[in-house]
Amino acid sequence: MQRYFAVDKRDDLFILESSDLHHISNVMRMKDGDFVEVVFDKVLYKCKVVIDNGITIIYDSILHGNDDPIDIVLIVPILKEQKMDLVLQKATELGATRIIPIITERCIVKLNDKESKKLERWSRIVKEASEQCKRISIPIIDNVHTISELNFSDGVKLVCSTRENEKNIKNIMHNLNGCAKMYIVVGPEGGLSIDEENKLNDLGFVSITLGKRIMRVETVPMFVLSILNYELME
Amino acid sequence: MQRYFAVDKRDDLFILESSDLHHISNVMRMKDGDFVEVVFDKVLYKCKVVIDNGITIIYDSILHGNDDPIDIVLIVPILKEQKMDLVLQKATELGATRIIPIITERCIVKLNDKESKKLERWSRIVKEASEQCKRISIPIIDNVHTISELNFSDGVKLVCSTRENEKNIKNIMHNLNGCAKMYIVVGPEGGLSIDEENKLNDLGFVSITLGKRIMRVETVPMFVLSILNYELME
Repeated sequence: MQRYFAVDKRDDLFILESSDLHHISNVMRMKDGDFVEVVFDKVLYKCKVVIDNGITIIYDSILHGNDDPIDIVLIVPILKEQKMDLVLQKATELGATRIIPIITERCIVKLNDKESKKLERWSRIVKEASEQCKRISIPIIDNVHTISELNFSDGVKLVCSTRENEKNIKNIMHNLNGCAKMYIVVGPEGGLSIDEENKLNDLGFVSITLGKRIMRVETVPMFVLSILNYELME
Repeated sequence: MQRYFAVDKRDDLFILESSDLHHISNVMRMKDGDFVEVVFDKVLYKCKVVIDNGITIIYDSILHGNDDPIDIVLIVPILKEQKMDLVLQKATELGATRIIPIITERCIVKLNDKESKKLERWSRIVKEASEQCKRISIPIIDNVHTISELNFSDGVKLVCSTRENEKNIKNIMHNLNGCAKMYIVVGPEGGLSIDEENKLNDLGFVSITLGKRIMRVETVPMFVLSILNYELME
């Protein structure tokens, strides 16, 4: 069943974005009486599509949906459009709950005044990816941060380092017992500067190595999130 | 140092493809006396670029290169161009040593008479990815196979299944002691047919689940290879 995220629920009626209603009628070509899955406020519903003068989405029943076992905050430099899109889509598939884009010294992409337009695009990508991989929540995309703004009081905090040789991701992931929230910083092409990594260490982020392979920047989030899923697998 | 794969070595002279020589002189704009890394026959060399009437690549010294700890054979359905390119690039970064494209019932892409052209394209992608991530071997790309041709006598054989619920990838990966070769089959969008999976099971492939997440086809190889790298990490 096709899945959509509702923006509101009024009694038995679900309010969907107009682009989703367009998708239902013109892309999926659904008929009156067809069913869809609708997520609202992290609850998954089975709903009936009623086509009359317009389209109405009506409550049918509650379905069982899996929620994410832990809160995963992915912190990534702003990348070129295609790579950024890939990271957002894959991070959504692999369970990131929040994504914080950051500006670093070695970032190639400059935002200038395009931030709100980019955020809009990124939000659309994670929403569509969430529908496609049938999540019951959409990752939150934060405003663009600087390194010094990454000041969080809770959770396990990691930075994927190109300088660290001793402590690897395995040492950390083997000890996730009771971890409810994890922050993971990925560096840009060319890595974080020494200053930036030091600043992150001061903010409580532990530098880890991902092993000997040389990976492109956009591969790193998929690598780390795959491993995290693996370690959380029952 | 930029890395290239030589096609031949004659005494102290390394023979590179003309596109690599073009890359050295016109893209990297190297000068007479600059150094490059050259891999030949799984050995990594430091070489001097000699620019005279043409470009010559001359032996300087042997460098230390990491070889792959185990043989990883990735077996993937033929995907649409962009997704196939992504899988090949990421599989190379994550250490696949051989890639076998397969035709399955639910493959969307039909090859017709384009196989040799595709193979050429795919080989170019894995060569470039190998240079970029500084491997000392390039994954071998096999001819397109059918399921029945996947008959191998050695190694651990896995098929990523959408039907299996019990045996997960963790059960297998936790017991890799002494494994020298692994075959991993990934299904197409919509999964392998029951017949195909049964045939693979008959050929010794063990069906495993990757957990509860719904992943796009192209995400699956990255997921499995990330986990494999993780388990092989020291």
